[in-house]
Amino acid sequence: MSVQWSPRNLPGQPGKDRGVFITFEGGEGCGKTTLARNIAARLGVAHHTCVLTIEPGGTPFGAAMRKFILHTRDEIALSPTAELFSYLADRTQHIDEVILPGLAEKKVILSDRYYDSSIAYQGEARGLGFEWVEACCKIATRGLAPDLTFYLDLAPETGFERIRGRTPDHIERQKLSFHESVRRGYQKLAAKYPERIVTLDARRTPEELVDESVAIINERFFHA
Amino acid sequence: MSVQWSPRNLPGQPGKDRGVFITFEGGEGCGKTTLARNIAARLGVAHHTCVLTIEPGGTPFGAAMRKFILHTRDEIALSPTAELFSYLADRTQHIDEVILPGLAEKKVILSDRYYDSSIAYQGEARGLGFEWVEACCKIATRGLAPDLTFYLDLAPETGFERIRGRTPDHIERQKLSFHESVRRGYQKLAAKYPERIVTLDARRTPEELVDESVAIINERFFHA
Repeated sequence: MSVQWSPRNLPGQPGKDRGVFITFEGGEGCGKTTLARNIAARLGVAHHTCVLTIEPGGTPFGAAMRKFILHTRDEIALSPTAELFSYLADRTQHIDEVILPGLAEKKVILSDRYYDSSIAYQGEARGLGFEWVEACCKIATRGLAPDLTFYLDLAPETGFERIRGRTPDHIERQKLSFHESVRRGYQKLAAKYPERIVTLDARRTPEELVDESVAIINERFFHA
Repeated sequence: MSVQWSPRNLPGQPGKDRGVFITFEGGEGCGKTTLARNIAARLGVAHHTCVLTIEPGGTPFGAAMRKFILHTRDEIALSPTAELFSYLADRTQHIDEVILPGLAEKKVILSDRYYDSSIAYQGEARGLGFEWVEACCKIATRGLAPDLTFYLDLAPETGFERIRGRTPDHIERQKLSFHESVRRGYQKLAAKYPERIVTLDARRTPEELVDESVAIINERFFHA
């Protein structure tokens, strides 16, 4: 079955007529928050105005929704599909309140997670279906795709070690299979969108990662 | 643009191999809650097990979400799109927790509102777009359409009079244009889906309305 709808068209060239929309994706402990911050610092020195933002929770509504979901999940049944649509509500508010206004003001939007997270986590790892979740994301965002996505690829064990400072215990090892599915989801996305998604080896140093990322951003959007 | 996805297939004949999914739609004060209750009473006498349910709020998660949205809207910005996706979250939980299990147990599900409400209120009256909201609803529900919908058509003025017991004042008259758009949305839906949606004149007596509705239900699903 297919549904028809009008995509959201972003007029003009990113970095020239409008801002640039860049997203950061990856599993727990992969270092995407650090990379986004380091890129913002470098681009700031070059006089590009950056907006560091996050999903879920990048707006007052999103922050309240995130708290509501976390609180609710402890008390009452929340289906994976209802969780997905709650995150989509957060995302649509984020688009209207932060992303589109920032792009209109020619800012560089650096978002810690966007719809690839839904596809990898809810679609692949929670089993809702990669294609269906992708279709939900595309229609909810009216086709607003990032101009560029950095996916920080890392073995889940290594991510856990980084976060907890130790090797995972028995229960954490069971969770590992979930995070391995998340990684598979991201790798499928990277293979499907080789132009948009740049895979980075998250084991490299923060300095190496920011060097490579900024070089790619400059080459693609600022012709430096 | 179109997105591909697999629809949810409900196996078998409604009323025979599985339950029947009936929804009630209309503007404020149209009497759909009363009609649903009266139908449940009549069908109960004929030994059909009915489930009276409601959107939003038909599950513990939905009730919490409804409260969260109402509370949030007074305090922080909530875009019409984020509102739509919050209601879709409620709806998907409602489907998984109430509607599909009830249909599997051969019950008659009587739902006070379903996706036609989103199309009429958010799509038409709030201006998000009839087609786009319909596409969002279809993908969120994986194409789970009601077997039958009763739309209680009523002029908004009459609905207001019924609720408030008086003619609308200046501010309420401004709101009337919103409710007139809601009505237009419903009328478009009824014209688009003449098989599924039965339009009832809501000015008729409750007794007349339940007589006609039960006759239609029996004829379509129970061959009485």
